[in-house]
Amino acid sequence: MSTPGNGSFIPASHSVNLVIARLRERLGTAGLFTEAIDKAPFETAARHGGGNARAVVRPSSAEELGWVVEELAAADVSFVVQGAATGLVGASTPTPCGSQWILSTQRLRDRLEIDPVNRSAVVAAGYRLSDVNRAAAAHGLCFPIDLGADPSIGGMVATNTGGARLIRYGGMRENVLSVACVLAHPAGARVGSTRALRKNNTGLDWPALMTGTFGAFGIVTHATLKLHPVQRQTATALLAVDSAEAAVSLLCSLEDAMGEFVSAFEGISGNALGAALDHLPGVSVPFPAMPPYAVLLEISSAVSTASGLDLESMLMGWLESQMEDNRISDAVVDKPEKLWRIRHAISESVQGLGRMIAFDVSVSRSRFAAFRRRTLALVETEMPAALVCDFGHLGDGGVHFNIVVPAETGAESIDRLRASLYLVTVDEFEGSFSAEHGIGPYNDQFYRRFTDAPTRALAKALHAQLDPRARIGNVRLD
Amino acid sequence: MSTPGNGSFIPASHSVNLVIARLRERLGTAGLFTEAIDKAPFETAARHGGGNARAVVRPSSAEELGWVVEELAAADVSFVVQGAATGLVGASTPTPCGSQWILSTQRLRDRLEIDPVNRSAVVAAGYRLSDVNRAAAAHGLCFPIDLGADPSIGGMVATNTGGARLIRYGGMRENVLSVACVLAHPAGARVGSTRALRKNNTGLDWPALMTGTFGAFGIVTHATLKLHPVQRQTATALLAVDSAEAAVSLLCSLEDAMGEFVSAFEGISGNALGAALDHLPGVSVPFPAMPPYAVLLEISSAVSTASGLDLESMLMGWLESQMEDNRISDAVVDKPEKLWRIRHAISESVQGLGRMIAFDVSVSRSRFAAFRRRTLALVETEMPAALVCDFGHLGDGGVHFNIVVPAETGAESIDRLRASLYLVTVDEFEGSFSAEHGIGPYNDQFYRRFTDAPTRALAKALHAQLDPRARIGNVRLD
Repeated sequence: MSTPGNGSFIPASHSVNLVIARLRERLGTAGLFTEAIDKAPFETAARHGGGNARAVVRPSSAEELGWVVEELAAADVSFVVQGAATGLVGASTPTPCGSQWILSTQRLRDRLEIDPVNRSAVVAAGYRLSDVNRAAAAHGLCFPIDLGADPSIGGMVATNTGGARLIRYGGMRENVLSVACVLAHPAGARVGSTRALRKNNTGLDWPALMTGTFGAFGIVTHATLKLHPVQRQTATALLAVDSAEAAVSLLCSLEDAMGEFVSAFEGISGNALGAALDHLPGVSVPFPAMPPYAVLLEISSAVSTASGLDLESMLMGWLESQMEDNRISDAVVDKPEKLWRIRHAISESVQGLGRMIAFDVSVSRSRFAAFRRRTLALVETEMPAALVCDFGHLGDGGVHFNIVVPAETGAESIDRLRASLYLVTVDEFEGSFSAEHGIGPYNDQFYRRFTDAPTRALAKALHAQLDPRARIGNVRLD
Repeated sequence: MSTPGNGSFIPASHSVNLVIARLRERLGTAGLFTEAIDKAPFETAARHGGGNARAVVRPSSAEELGWVVEELAAADVSFVVQGAATGLVGASTPTPCGSQWILSTQRLRDRLEIDPVNRSAVVAAGYRLSDVNRAAAAHGLCFPIDLGADPSIGGMVATNTGGARLIRYGGMRENVLSVACVLAHPAGARVGSTRALRKNNTGLDWPALMTGTFGAFGIVTHATLKLHPVQRQTATALLAVDSAEAAVSLLCSLEDAMGEFVSAFEGISGNALGAALDHLPGVSVPFPAMPPYAVLLEISSAVSTASGLDLESMLMGWLESQMEDNRISDAVVDKPEKLWRIRHAISESVQGLGRMIAFDVSVSRSRFAAFRRRTLALVETEMPAALVCDFGHLGDGGVHFNIVVPAETGAESIDRLRASLYLVTVDEFEGSFSAEHGIGPYNDQFYRRFTDAPTRALAKALHAQLDPRARIGNVRLD
């Protein structure tokens, strides 16, 4: 029965200690950590999760990674794949029991190849988003998925990251041309490719399966990414408006006037804006009074002002017309980095206010304002002492509906609030309970609550085919 | 064992005649065709394929379609799903044996709802691309997948259509927000949704599975599509260049100068251009001599000239600089409809030259010129009497490498040529043997030749889960 490449059906032909010895021999000391002090940095997650690993293994090529997976299969070891561990739902850290391994892609950095003519890049999973952008910038190109963190490319595929500029560029699903993967079953089998094709319509698409399935079905070793031109001009404004309704109507007006130039449209509640401004040293409230709602908008172009296109004057003209129509109370036009600094400070500032419960939800843009009214009322009823500091990517319907709750709030009340807020989002507003953070142990119970039987049955069939011994990760979609 | 919704494991509890009577009773005469004269229009494909149907059933809602699938399962009937039958690989017409049914989505037109604020549309599978564009235009929006044919939306999802403006907007995969489907197993089960979310990262994604899998895994009843703003200005030019190399270098220069405005960049061989110009009444060669290679380029913007942005002058300025650098031999700037008329005439004109063998391939843009040299040499060697009239979407690496062969060419020579050309495309140039037409009986043998074992094993697991009795269609990916 022992056929090469089919190792996952042979339970524990090797002992864990034998595998450790074999891995150490081939990968060297940088490739395998078994001491507590070395493992510790890998055992903690960015926000939720964290556990204990039996060992951390760090292969440096797809070949090595495939071989490692075969070895782990031979010892019947289960493992969680970890990129930069910047995810927010606990999907990249091990369970607490201590038997799981961490398979880190940190050293998987054998290829980062920019093809400027094709506007694409082949990138090993262990490179960070910032690495790709640094390499692409040398050719006037960028990978424009814009995130607060600096994740690994493998993690970005698994999480299907979205970010603040999705409205213009799409998320990972729209920007991955191909993926090369290692499977848990047949253990170590390599599938997919690094082909840099914009059109390839020949059947099952590994990127379609691997993007946004949280590593449950295999390990991405390389991704081929679409690159975009670096923006040569950007104009940004921070606007004070009366309400979320006014913000949505402003979005429509901006899109109508600015077409393809619109690259971000962030909604910020007065509470979230206040927290960020209090938190940032030397930044004062840019408006006469704190508005109930604010918008950070960005328009940008890869075409320089030398062409005659001048986005800053276009923006000024548009802002004037909106102010004349009383659609904006106040506006600040300033350098992108200054305004984005306020936006990027929100998450940490809100956490600084106390105990934060984060919601990463989305609805259709046309229902956004009603959704916000409904959920604010819900929190007011269920937890009157809580402070809602919502903000997010209004342009794509995404909301980080973050809530600061009194320190003494019991776990039961929090669970109840999460359940009712998600129920309203999904069932009343046809929204998503995880817009861009994905699924992990943190929100697994809601995955189970909201996912229908045929979808889970399909996931079960995929697990049975690709990982029948449940060796990969801590996300099961069945 | 007989549980509702699980009918596909109950072989032939109904006779076909009983099912016909039941369908006729519920769907009426417009819903079921069994006479030869009524079936005939559904039995012929646009280019390849065609066969004989036992009956044509035309449900008019997802509920009806689900019930029809249950009924067909009860009689153990297999069926092929057909939209507008505009596909080019024979995937929507029945086998010749006459036992298969056609499940037409022609009457599935219960929803076409535009959400202008969300810039999305919920569309029943039977609507055509032109229907969606007509409805969207009322809101200044469009669905910009640009194709020679006018397919049904269901067919576009199944085929993952790409087209001439993919370089700007992406293809179907990048523009489908959600799909609602009926499964063959459990027979008639309804999965997916019509949620209009740009961000929804909660596990298995039905659009990811259903887009570009040629209907093999289920029947799309509704798709929710991203809409884009109608372009308010467009500038087009037809350029004569020395070679495909020069065309690729021009593409880089255009993208560098025009950024996000570039919406099409079509490569046209001298032979293809000559065929189109001969074919079109009243259109003469716009250049002093027929060039070896030509480019049709388009830049466009949703921002009107009233903003100060003037694409036509930008294009004129860029063309002048390119002519000064001798990168273009000749240029014609003219109305989009006039220049696109030439481009759209190519396919039919080339067919008019004689017996045409069509190849729909793609490579990375950086290998395009070398690929063209290599394949032209290959045809020259293998079939010296053939005339290559290649053209296509150079901006995304796609080529319709169409060849006119002598009328008396034997099937064996043609098969040999197809095999060698695909081999060069896929193995030497890491390209695709079906860039946008997809997989059907016409190119199934090459699917089998080029698809690796783990990918086919995965497809087999999906078939086993979603259609274990092989009831749907004539495309099997296992």
